[in-house]
Amino acid sequence: MNAEIIAVGSELLLGQIDNSNATFISKELSKIGVNVYYHQVAGDNPERLQEAVKTAQNRADILIFTGGLGPTKDDLTRETLSSMTGIDLIYDDEAMKRLEEFFDKRGKKATSNNLKQALTFDGAEVLQNDEGLACGSIFEHQGTVFMLLPGPPREMKAMFKNYGIPYLSKNISDNQKMQSMILRFYEIGESQLVDKIDDLLEEQTNPTIAPLASDDEVTLRLTVKGPSPETNEEMLNELKEKVFERVGEYCYGESDQELEQTVADMLRDKEISVSAAESLTGGLFANTMTSFAGASMIFPGGVVCYSNDAKQASLNVPSDILENDGAVSEACAKSMAEGARKLFQSDYAISFTGAAGPDPLEGYQPGEMFIGLAGPEGTEAHFVRVGGSRNRIRTYAVKRGLYLLFQELRNEKDG
Amino acid sequence: MNAEIIAVGSELLLGQIDNSNATFISKELSKIGVNVYYHQVAGDNPERLQEAVKTAQNRADILIFTGGLGPTKDDLTRETLSSMTGIDLIYDDEAMKRLEEFFDKRGKKATSNNLKQALTFDGAEVLQNDEGLACGSIFEHQGTVFMLLPGPPREMKAMFKNYGIPYLSKNISDNQKMQSMILRFYEIGESQLVDKIDDLLEEQTNPTIAPLASDDEVTLRLTVKGPSPETNEEMLNELKEKVFERVGEYCYGESDQELEQTVADMLRDKEISVSAAESLTGGLFANTMTSFAGASMIFPGGVVCYSNDAKQASLNVPSDILENDGAVSEACAKSMAEGARKLFQSDYAISFTGAAGPDPLEGYQPGEMFIGLAGPEGTEAHFVRVGGSRNRIRTYAVKRGLYLLFQELRNEKDG
Repeated sequence: MNAEIIAVGSELLLGQIDNSNATFISKELSKIGVNVYYHQVAGDNPERLQEAVKTAQNRADILIFTGGLGPTKDDLTRETLSSMTGIDLIYDDEAMKRLEEFFDKRGKKATSNNLKQALTFDGAEVLQNDEGLACGSIFEHQGTVFMLLPGPPREMKAMFKNYGIPYLSKNISDNQKMQSMILRFYEIGESQLVDKIDDLLEEQTNPTIAPLASDDEVTLRLTVKGPSPETNEEMLNELKEKVFERVGEYCYGESDQELEQTVADMLRDKEISVSAAESLTGGLFANTMTSFAGASMIFPGGVVCYSNDAKQASLNVPSDILENDGAVSEACAKSMAEGARKLFQSDYAISFTGAAGPDPLEGYQPGEMFIGLAGPEGTEAHFVRVGGSRNRIRTYAVKRGLYLLFQELRNEKDG
Repeated sequence: MNAEIIAVGSELLLGQIDNSNATFISKELSKIGVNVYYHQVAGDNPERLQEAVKTAQNRADILIFTGGLGPTKDDLTRETLSSMTGIDLIYDDEAMKRLEEFFDKRGKKATSNNLKQALTFDGAEVLQNDEGLACGSIFEHQGTVFMLLPGPPREMKAMFKNYGIPYLSKNISDNQKMQSMILRFYEIGESQLVDKIDDLLEEQTNPTIAPLASDDEVTLRLTVKGPSPETNEEMLNELKEKVFERVGEYCYGESDQELEQTVADMLRDKEISVSAAESLTGGLFANTMTSFAGASMIFPGGVVCYSNDAKQASLNVPSDILENDGAVSEACAKSMAEGARKLFQSDYAISFTGAAGPDPLEGYQPGEMFIGLAGPEGTEAHFVRVGGSRNRIRTYAVKRGLYLLFQELRNEKDG
């Protein structure tokens, strides 16, 4: 059973926004074992949308549409599919009720354009929109499943997770249960990893191994298909052991979540706090730590001290360090980390100082930096060098700092 | 002349990453007047990639491929197209030379898999990869232009901008010069804006008007097509005037750049600095300001003070404000802003305190916040309320703070 995702919207073809809807839907489908073989994007144009649909009908069992369900003239997905399939559009009572309530509350009247958001297909299952006004639909036509979802990501995600996925899960053959395991690696590049597990990649049948390099992390996704969850689990573990024989030392976790979430969980479980002193990374570390709910327990605060004066004023970095060693130095990184740890009374503190680029700083090239870590046992600093753009250097630095902290917390655990 | 973008990569179909390459290419193409009518994504599978190419050949003049040019077994774009078109693959001398130099420097030998990255099509124009090893190609076949670009975004962007776009610009008919103007609006929602300019949207022919809502900003893109740049300019300005008659008061800029860049430019031109005291936004404002090169002149630093202790320790917010008014209050927002302004000796300082969610804070619902602005003339604080997820609340807050600062700087200019 395979699906094709068709995103409708000229703003996608003008490169104004990413097609993140397709990414989300693809990820959710992979979790329930539905293959996605193609994505398409078509504009707000009936003829070209029809063309895209015809193509998709020839190669997919399930067509999932996002976008084009809104109240403007450019919103044409329902109309186009109604025209193609010959299925009439009718108003859904519940969706209409929600629409009218929305406008009543604001003391306004719904225009006819607004009302079309309550249209569905005769005989279809209606998917209510819990985050907006446009309802979605699912129907079958000539052996193909059509699913219409709204364009705004927040609305689409809620509808797809709450109603779309359950519908598909119910209707999928039970012969093929799919199960995945994700292994996460750090301090090894994708091509090195692929080299070391080359024999496993060659001979893979079931389970399969898919390597992926994301932001400075490398993941391996092991996926098994089979009728029995127990056998599936066994097969995955067997393959995992083979992978570990080859590259186990670089594996830091087995989960769907990125390093920052793993570190946040460790801090929370151990009731340990960390603060930050950021020059190079300019607030990106703090922003990463505070993106988690309940962050205040693990991250009381941080300082972004871009100028040397700011380093002195906010963290008490001594002027002789700044004058003699410089801002980009092991001594300064250590002093910054200790300053933050003291200021915020945290268990640990991490610091970042270096050249973000595009210009060199104090003789250091863009991408050269010191990362400091202050803790109960003392303070250390590491020199790190990475290439790339300003943004890339900063995200890499944050990830590297998180990994330092991770190693420290893991060692603490082991005693 | 229209293009179709085909991104090759199973990781896209598994929803592991967004197809940001298609977004970038689409945007660049729109600037030079090449229409994009479809995007496709296909996996690392020769049969299905061929299927996607056949579909695209029927509906586009230019096929732009990203991905599948690397050194692994899954990299199949060249091989598949060679098979389909019958054009032989040959090694490019320059690309080969770069490959060999890369491996020499590291004291390694290139494997045959590595070497395939220097393959091109017999008779094709070769696009060198200035950021990586896989070279790209452009060739014509049966009236269709084929352009192959690498998958990693950094490599693709450089190659497309430096070599792909110039190739296409040279080969585009001169009858149709396209010119765009972007108008940027704040404090008005997309549907309100669309309402107010409804007559212009109805009657548009050339130029066209396309509204787009992005992260809490609304932009209108005016696009004109015609043989004469002077007439084009006139027509755009004429339409702009009509837009301004209706919604001019909400327009804050006419550019391709987001509010943060505009504010950074204003600060730089006026040699004004701003610092930050962030609770709610957790470092996002600092991170935004420091993403610009040369940020240290306009942003000396900021504090992320998540806990009440941190607010006291780092910014000297008095304990009686925290006890009596609370952290989420006008008084606290003002005190935080003044504290940062003093600590970093900046001209202005901005503060953010509120409930990010998902839980309420001090009786305030998620999305309720105070934004403070301290400056030479005094300190003010504004209550703001917005809906949405934790992330959405934080990005909105930063944008709102930037807009406050923008209005202040603009008024300063006018005297």
